[in-house]
Amino acid sequence: MESERDFTPQCPIPLTEYPHILLAHGGGGELMHHLIEKMFLPAFRNALLDAQHDGAVLDLEGIRLAFTTDSYVVHPLVFPGGTIGDLAINGTVNDLAMCGARPLFLSAGFILEEGLPMETLWHIVQSMQRAAERAKVQLVTGDTKVVDKGKGDGLFINTTGIGIIEHNCLIAPHRVQPGDAILLNGDIGRHGIAIMAVREGLAFESPIESDTAPLADLVLQLLQAGIDVHCLRDLTRGGLASALNEIARAGGVHIHIEESAIPVCEDVRGACEILGLDPLYVANEGRLVAFIGPTDVERVLTIMRAHPLGADARLIGRVTDDDPGLVTMTSAIGARRVVDMLSGEQLPRIC
Amino acid sequence: MESERDFTPQCPIPLTEYPHILLAHGGGGELMHHLIEKMFLPAFRNALLDAQHDGAVLDLEGIRLAFTTDSYVVHPLVFPGGTIGDLAINGTVNDLAMCGARPLFLSAGFILEEGLPMETLWHIVQSMQRAAERAKVQLVTGDTKVVDKGKGDGLFINTTGIGIIEHNCLIAPHRVQPGDAILLNGDIGRHGIAIMAVREGLAFESPIESDTAPLADLVLQLLQAGIDVHCLRDLTRGGLASALNEIARAGGVHIHIEESAIPVCEDVRGACEILGLDPLYVANEGRLVAFIGPTDVERVLTIMRAHPLGADARLIGRVTDDDPGLVTMTSAIGARRVVDMLSGEQLPRIC
Repeated sequence: MESERDFTPQCPIPLTEYPHILLAHGGGGELMHHLIEKMFLPAFRNALLDAQHDGAVLDLEGIRLAFTTDSYVVHPLVFPGGTIGDLAINGTVNDLAMCGARPLFLSAGFILEEGLPMETLWHIVQSMQRAAERAKVQLVTGDTKVVDKGKGDGLFINTTGIGIIEHNCLIAPHRVQPGDAILLNGDIGRHGIAIMAVREGLAFESPIESDTAPLADLVLQLLQAGIDVHCLRDLTRGGLASALNEIARAGGVHIHIEESAIPVCEDVRGACEILGLDPLYVANEGRLVAFIGPTDVERVLTIMRAHPLGADARLIGRVTDDDPGLVTMTSAIGARRVVDMLSGEQLPRIC
Repeated sequence: MESERDFTPQCPIPLTEYPHILLAHGGGGELMHHLIEKMFLPAFRNALLDAQHDGAVLDLEGIRLAFTTDSYVVHPLVFPGGTIGDLAINGTVNDLAMCGARPLFLSAGFILEEGLPMETLWHIVQSMQRAAERAKVQLVTGDTKVVDKGKGDGLFINTTGIGIIEHNCLIAPHRVQPGDAILLNGDIGRHGIAIMAVREGLAFESPIESDTAPLADLVLQLLQAGIDVHCLRDLTRGGLASALNEIARAGGVHIHIEESAIPVCEDVRGACEILGLDPLYVANEGRLVAFIGPTDVERVLTIMRAHPLGADARLIGRVTDDDPGLVTMTSAIGARRVVDMLSGEQLPRIC
């Protein structure tokens, strides 16, 4: 900790511009990053927090642990392919996996709204239990709070996880370098569209199901095979576009991707057109990008494709040093365009 | 994990009696324990969770860690003596301390309601930063979500903490035994009454301030002095009465306390009379009870009284084997009565 910390009474967010919190401050885009970088990081400044990874990596007497937290506020609580409960398990398991850790222990904090049907809670608790078993994590401590009717929205869940790092591979945005290949483990957009379809009452022949899944096993297989994984990121709020922008900025590199290489299933593409959404910005809960050296591409694709969560894995782009901080894409019709960080709130309360 | 786990579709809470969540399910009393024991513990069954301590104690390659979570939903967000922010730091630090751990790292998950004034958030973040510095913990990872206006209540905060256990003393309810002395580190009821006074518009010559404070340093001084601490519990939701009932049940012992030995400041006593509250059930955020062997009483009182957070420490009672599971009290006028677990919701959203 620093001793010269400045107890400025002045709010670091310009109050004339943003006097109140907006939905977009939680959307995974520019406004959220602004809030984190201007308010939270300077207040709690320390080296672990500054790393701005999906979790903190702690060294405890020679043991390396990953530690990560997420609150889940998805609406509705139950949706095709999942519930807020399994999302709360998988999301935190995935953040641990993105640090290269084996997820071990989770905590769960429940904020219940007075009036929540008891059976709904029971259904969600059961789905959490099954998700924890699938992801091989133990839920070891918890907390329950209840707020008055009208002061919550049924149920919010926080899960915080501890995982152990059992290898010497350093996985971080600053390890991304020109020449790196970018691999994606499957089609994008299903989680966000599953939620939006329920909210907007869209009907499909067969409902689009969330891709919610635990990614730790897939990542551990890469690491156990000795792959030098440079960086990992799961594609949650703000989707693929926001994840790539975060890494391009944090790593000081230029990322270029090929639209034609990115799988999007037909129903998702159709729903995106109806809803006016770009699949690049739609949230996923079982998708990741891996940054690896160019000579490892074939081995990683082979390992990923042999895993149920990587059957449709693809090489989607490359890292260059052309325009550090920028993400560009060659579109399906061959035009080149900039892929910006999401500027506002595309899909509120998607996770 | 067990393989024969029963995926019963039947909700374990009787739906005819409790079809919906009530405020009392979060109040720290009977209904909350019922929900935890009937629904959460069976679903996630494992030895660490079953210990029902303030946190889980994890063994990681020979290193013992404490791990604990709490969500904070206190209303109002700012009150005499504190904010939801320093409460979120101190509360989780104290849960780690109750495991005998040195608090090291915290995560913070913010659930913001659209429309929260930016300056309020800034004020709270600053109070968290100061509380973290005072408690010597680092906030190393975080998460921010925003919910639509009317679906939250300004701000909820989850903090989850990791501490390290650097001694061989086992601190747990089952170590409490007949003959043990029960020590309290100061006057009770100030936190709950500080909150209620704001809510009810009670005026005092000088406002009653919350006792919110980090208790880890006080606990570590006892352990460093080699005191064999049998059990510790901080007196949050449900107050002293609920904490003692939890330990009497979990430890299978009878606890007897002396009302005249329990310090309650005059303003708190007066406010309790006006509000119809019993100070034994009012929440504290800087108070604990310690269960120790009878020969350690003088040493512990000396150490506590030399610490700013234990200046008014007292011996308040004894453990016996008369009526296992029961808590009784000799009142100020000499009558003996049973001190029950809180049955409903005395003070909603007090932490």
